[in-house]
Amino acid sequence: MAAKIIDGVALAERIKQDVAVRVRAMPKPVYLVAVLVGATPAGELYAQRQGDACRALGIQYDLLTLPDDVTQKDVKREIRRLNDDPNVTGIMMHLPLPQHLDAPRLQYEIDVVKDVEGVNPANIGYVVYGHTVIAPCTALSVIELIKSTGVEMRGAEATVVGASQIVGKPVSLLLTEQMATVRLCHIATRDLKEHTRAADLLVVAVGKAGLIIADHVKEGAVVIDVGINRITAPDGTKKTVGDVDFESVRQKAGHITPVPGGVGPMTVAMLLKNTLRSAEILFGLQK
Amino acid sequence: MAAKIIDGVALAERIKQDVAVRVRAMPKPVYLVAVLVGATPAGELYAQRQGDACRALGIQYDLLTLPDDVTQKDVKREIRRLNDDPNVTGIMMHLPLPQHLDAPRLQYEIDVVKDVEGVNPANIGYVVYGHTVIAPCTALSVIELIKSTGVEMRGAEATVVGASQIVGKPVSLLLTEQMATVRLCHIATRDLKEHTRAADLLVVAVGKAGLIIADHVKEGAVVIDVGINRITAPDGTKKTVGDVDFESVRQKAGHITPVPGGVGPMTVAMLLKNTLRSAEILFGLQK
Repeated sequence: MAAKIIDGVALAERIKQDVAVRVRAMPKPVYLVAVLVGATPAGELYAQRQGDACRALGIQYDLLTLPDDVTQKDVKREIRRLNDDPNVTGIMMHLPLPQHLDAPRLQYEIDVVKDVEGVNPANIGYVVYGHTVIAPCTALSVIELIKSTGVEMRGAEATVVGASQIVGKPVSLLLTEQMATVRLCHIATRDLKEHTRAADLLVVAVGKAGLIIADHVKEGAVVIDVGINRITAPDGTKKTVGDVDFESVRQKAGHITPVPGGVGPMTVAMLLKNTLRSAEILFGLQK
Repeated sequence: MAAKIIDGVALAERIKQDVAVRVRAMPKPVYLVAVLVGATPAGELYAQRQGDACRALGIQYDLLTLPDDVTQKDVKREIRRLNDDPNVTGIMMHLPLPQHLDAPRLQYEIDVVKDVEGVNPANIGYVVYGHTVIAPCTALSVIELIKSTGVEMRGAEATVVGASQIVGKPVSLLLTEQMATVRLCHIATRDLKEHTRAADLLVVAVGKAGLIIADHVKEGAVVIDVGINRITAPDGTKKTVGDVDFESVRQKAGHITPVPGGVGPMTVAMLLKNTLRSAEILFGLQK
């Protein structure tokens, strides 16, 4: 039997509607400032779309653009100014930064509560400590997508493929928090298939089209594909695919996310949900 | 063939001797202040031994004892004062704290570089980010003990039993940093034996005597026993044992740590090594 397709677009839409209702019920405005270092057309377009997504939910949004030769010290000063501004409820910083800037040290400067992307190392540490304040958006999306299937995470065998700082490691921590038994695989894993075939929950975040085929997957597994790859089909057309060979794996899995339309839209929704959460904590409406 | 016993006492001694040499070569004193909230005889004895261990290596040591009804705000103020004191190169806080205090929030106040125990959530996050400043001592001990065997960690199958915040999770992160494929097991794991038998590197940190017997262990594995349990033998005598049934497992493992004499002494040594490292970073001698 073919897998159920997990509809990330519909789930993201429901989350955004819920956020919009709660934003409008807030005593004070929810206000996100995004920092963009070095304006590129792609970066600005992305930021513009993000601003539109915020405003559609009633979240105020501003983009702070800094020149691409800005110093570490000056970025730090701008972040501190935003931390101290009582009207600003959320802060995010677009990546990648120019080479001369140290991203983790700057992310560390973002106020723990205003850090809507959950990228301050302290927020990652609070996840490890089981005292989550704001968790990273993509990792949260993976958990929400699994939750939407109704499959029990507690005691489940979970395998995460790809041990990146922003996805693989945080996902494995959040899965552990959900009491799954987690295996974290990566480039040095000797026998990847042994680990993926044991997984009730398989999360793939490598960035390599076609990495996971049906033979890697356990019958009935939940498969979450975080990969986003642009490939050229034999007929010359370009398309976006994940790390999972969707057509073969969907014949074997129990649930699967498509690419596009799975993790991608959910990550945007979770950023907006985190933005709401930051404001709720700041306003004393949540712990 | 019986396993090689990993001598944690001897390894700790070598590390301490190296620390002593480097402390004496420092341009300024290395100075650790330990915070103890609520003086108990056990806490004070422990702190006194710690002070002796520091002074033996040329590290200055002071114990700051606060009353057990001290407020969160006052502890925070004391920590900030130590952060700002240029003579203080390292800060640690004895746990457990009284119930009314929030340990992670206080650990978060400790300056990232002066945090010799590596318990500030930001330091845990930097480990996740692969930008380790100071890592947690017990987790570091586990890595050093494995390194001392000469067994390659890259690509090895590693299983960590016990997903605690201070040991299990940080150990699994450090093993991932070493490029092992890591499984993190805990109370909700369905079939523990399946995971432990697959392990080239088996780390056990649960706190349950006799949890791991020979049947759980792969032939030739490296077994690191973090457990410390006080048990009463059939003849009424009390003794300290780990989580691993040493006598049976040593017949099958390749290398094994004893309890006592394995992880315990190493954790003390790694605290001292971290204390040196903090001072070296502060003095600009290390990144």
